[in-house]
Amino acid sequence: MNNHLDSLFNPENIAVVGASNNPLKAGYVIIQNLINIGYPKKIFPINIKEEYVSGIKSYESLCDIEDKVEMVVLIMPAGAIFDVMKDIENRMERRNDIKIIVCAAADFAETKNPEGIERQNYLMEISKRYGIRVVGPNCIGVIDNVNRVDTTFVETLLPKESRGKKGGISFISQSGAVAASLLMIGASQPAPISFNKFISIGNMADIDFIDLLEYFGNDVDTKVIGLYLEGYPDGRKLINTMANITVKKPIVVLKVGRSEKGASAASSHTGSLAGSDTVYDSAFKQYGVTRVDTIQELMDTLQAFDSLKLPDDGNVFILSQAGGPGIYCTDSVSDYDNLEMPVIGDSTKEKLKEIVPAMSSICKPEGYADITAAADVRHHVESLRIVMDDSNVSSVILITVVPTFLPQKELAEGLIELLDHEGYKDKKTVFINIMSGNYVWECRKSIEDRGIYTFTTPDLAVKALSNMVRYTNYLKRKRGK
Amino acid sequence: MNNHLDSLFNPENIAVVGASNNPLKAGYVIIQNLINIGYPKKIFPINIKEEYVSGIKSYESLCDIEDKVEMVVLIMPAGAIFDVMKDIENRMERRNDIKIIVCAAADFAETKNPEGIERQNYLMEISKRYGIRVVGPNCIGVIDNVNRVDTTFVETLLPKESRGKKGGISFISQSGAVAASLLMIGASQPAPISFNKFISIGNMADIDFIDLLEYFGNDVDTKVIGLYLEGYPDGRKLINTMANITVKKPIVVLKVGRSEKGASAASSHTGSLAGSDTVYDSAFKQYGVTRVDTIQELMDTLQAFDSLKLPDDGNVFILSQAGGPGIYCTDSVSDYDNLEMPVIGDSTKEKLKEIVPAMSSICKPEGYADITAAADVRHHVESLRIVMDDSNVSSVILITVVPTFLPQKELAEGLIELLDHEGYKDKKTVFINIMSGNYVWECRKSIEDRGIYTFTTPDLAVKALSNMVRYTNYLKRKRGK
Repeated sequence: MNNHLDSLFNPENIAVVGASNNPLKAGYVIIQNLINIGYPKKIFPINIKEEYVSGIKSYESLCDIEDKVEMVVLIMPAGAIFDVMKDIENRMERRNDIKIIVCAAADFAETKNPEGIERQNYLMEISKRYGIRVVGPNCIGVIDNVNRVDTTFVETLLPKESRGKKGGISFISQSGAVAASLLMIGASQPAPISFNKFISIGNMADIDFIDLLEYFGNDVDTKVIGLYLEGYPDGRKLINTMANITVKKPIVVLKVGRSEKGASAASSHTGSLAGSDTVYDSAFKQYGVTRVDTIQELMDTLQAFDSLKLPDDGNVFILSQAGGPGIYCTDSVSDYDNLEMPVIGDSTKEKLKEIVPAMSSICKPEGYADITAAADVRHHVESLRIVMDDSNVSSVILITVVPTFLPQKELAEGLIELLDHEGYKDKKTVFINIMSGNYVWECRKSIEDRGIYTFTTPDLAVKALSNMVRYTNYLKRKRGK
Repeated sequence: MNNHLDSLFNPENIAVVGASNNPLKAGYVIIQNLINIGYPKKIFPINIKEEYVSGIKSYESLCDIEDKVEMVVLIMPAGAIFDVMKDIENRMERRNDIKIIVCAAADFAETKNPEGIERQNYLMEISKRYGIRVVGPNCIGVIDNVNRVDTTFVETLLPKESRGKKGGISFISQSGAVAASLLMIGASQPAPISFNKFISIGNMADIDFIDLLEYFGNDVDTKVIGLYLEGYPDGRKLINTMANITVKKPIVVLKVGRSEKGASAASSHTGSLAGSDTVYDSAFKQYGVTRVDTIQELMDTLQAFDSLKLPDDGNVFILSQAGGPGIYCTDSVSDYDNLEMPVIGDSTKEKLKEIVPAMSSICKPEGYADITAAADVRHHVESLRIVMDDSNVSSVILITVVPTFLPQKELAEGLIELLDHEGYKDKKTVFINIMSGNYVWECRKSIEDRGIYTFTTPDLAVKALSNMVRYTNYLKRKRGK
């Protein structure tokens, strides 16, 4: 069936049933998103009343389209599903070209009422008859930034130049709202995040976690897989699928229903039982699945896995230009059992002392240096180089609270020179914290534009680091066997 | 001595020794910040070479100034301290008007070298002789948004219209870098934060935590006090001072040196011993001091205390337009022992069912409602009203992931009408989560401009709520005695 999933992420032409010229309608946003991402093939709006939708010729029915249509997106009112499926049936009898339906429309089995269930049954009956795979219903759609597909109806204010870029994160969300939120949050970062592939699976009437995990697991463009999970009917199968993947690439899961109340809310929501959270939790630990607790941790950890070298182990050096935030970071590191601040070599200490400002504090405590606010760009870059050159150091957390007299453009350029051009980012793992807020936005953006993720505060960097080290240790255990 | 602290936050004219026309110098930024905040009295730059600094007439020495000078800010190189103090001495002999020195310059006792210590001793010797109180050295300065004073050299990109506004948060930071970071983060929120008073205390050669806590404790404009704390020589005195305040207003503390390594780094930094963290921790708990672990939690909790009604107890209702984020929030609430999701009255449930969209899920589980993405503005506002009217509900967490078809301006207006104009924000505590990112920025800003803080993600709202409830319970215990 994988050729159908290929069509899901790279369809030959897309028809949108329920396309609209009304900017408040989801059927408007879908067409806009397809245009804005630069979908290279043909878009066919289906709308009985309009001649053009967003300037694109519109059709009354799918059967009227002369070209091949591999994907049909449904965003019309759910009540029209019977007519729409008849149109699809007619087309399949004559052309047999549709491979994927993305049913973004809601009001299907998730309503738990007979009408909704009947609508979903009919959607599936016709689809199965013709071998069409279905995403949804009740989902927000699918994005592929490699093939420039975006069938979602989420507005994110993502700048046009950020669309169609290619990151290594592929994401599967069981909640449309969480999916929308992640897209919005991602769009609002210094360098907006481009998911490699992104899919909201809604009611999982057909395509579900297993199909997508297997697909992403084998997808060379996908470096790390993210999941928002409420529950899955066959937990064992889900875990086994994950276990086959985590030996190759990391999976990061935000699973809700941790608590009894949360599980009850999840059950009302997607209908599926959340399953025993403790069973999931211990299975995740056993099979190297990275579980995160918050949306922030999810985003940080996914991007750390995507853009930073996997650390060799938990030896992390804190290199700070600012005392307070450095101490704050030291406390954070101490919170994690799998992290350690290493004793660096005497010659490294000597080299550091030679180049940093006079009042710097080197290795008090071990694994920590405060190069003070007197540090200029060269002090930052060269001390980072010296620390990264030390064989006892696997990761470095670099912290700077930018004062007026530290030129940010030069700071970004200096760090990019070392990490990117000289290739240091491939030698060791670097967690960059340039603080704070809008004042340092452009500086962070320059660095992130080179594919080096930056963190908002040191504690968030430490959390992501600890998650990465846990995965490193899992791989070591697996490979040691 | 309090009249001197009055002069600290409301000085009659300010001289800045080391004022500069070079935008890369701290002495430039200080003058700019004073101008930008609209400091209503006179600014006297002291600079031997320049006739004007930022267009303001400059002086060669303090003695040349005809007007009264209550505050002198020092930002010249530390080596000049002997000449500067002689100038101050001369002025005091003739005019006796200086009450406060803010020594922003660094390179004093914090260097731990004999020259630095001598400089600080000399600064203090002359100051004490003339009864001048000193902030610093090695600090970033002081801000008062009521009296429009800003002697800091931190650039934050804070919009001019946000300067000189009056919030209720007063903050004391033992680290200049943490202080700078908090200012930058605050400036980058939907509605930029205006600290009531903000001070970085540096080396605490004179004015320290105790002076400022006592001052803020009695300050009617200060509603909540924030602290970044590394250590204090007399921990018992610090705790006693705090204990006298927490019966009147909340204190929120980010104390570092939690870990052994962190304490060691703190000791290298400010020289003061961090003290036993467990002793601090249990004292904080005993005396109702709110301890936070992260910078994010610090900012959220301070603003929740400042802008939201203190909850009566831990009964919190989750009202969500989005299933996934609602479940996520439910899990978060379950993480805190002092929070509970209440059973609301049957009539409240009936009223809710009457007005919300058909597919809504009401009170499955109890204390939770999912009004679905079909909810329009009226659904949001009226369901919030109904829930807030229920006597079993003390707080509400409102979550919305804004879809294209939910008009944000009207949503903000509807919530402002209910919470502000109709006064509901004074009846119950409301935690607003409008998600996510830049897409909802203006909507959040409109609401925050009315003095109602909004949260980035539900887990952060829950954390702030739990901190508030802990304080509520402390006050109940104290007042029950």
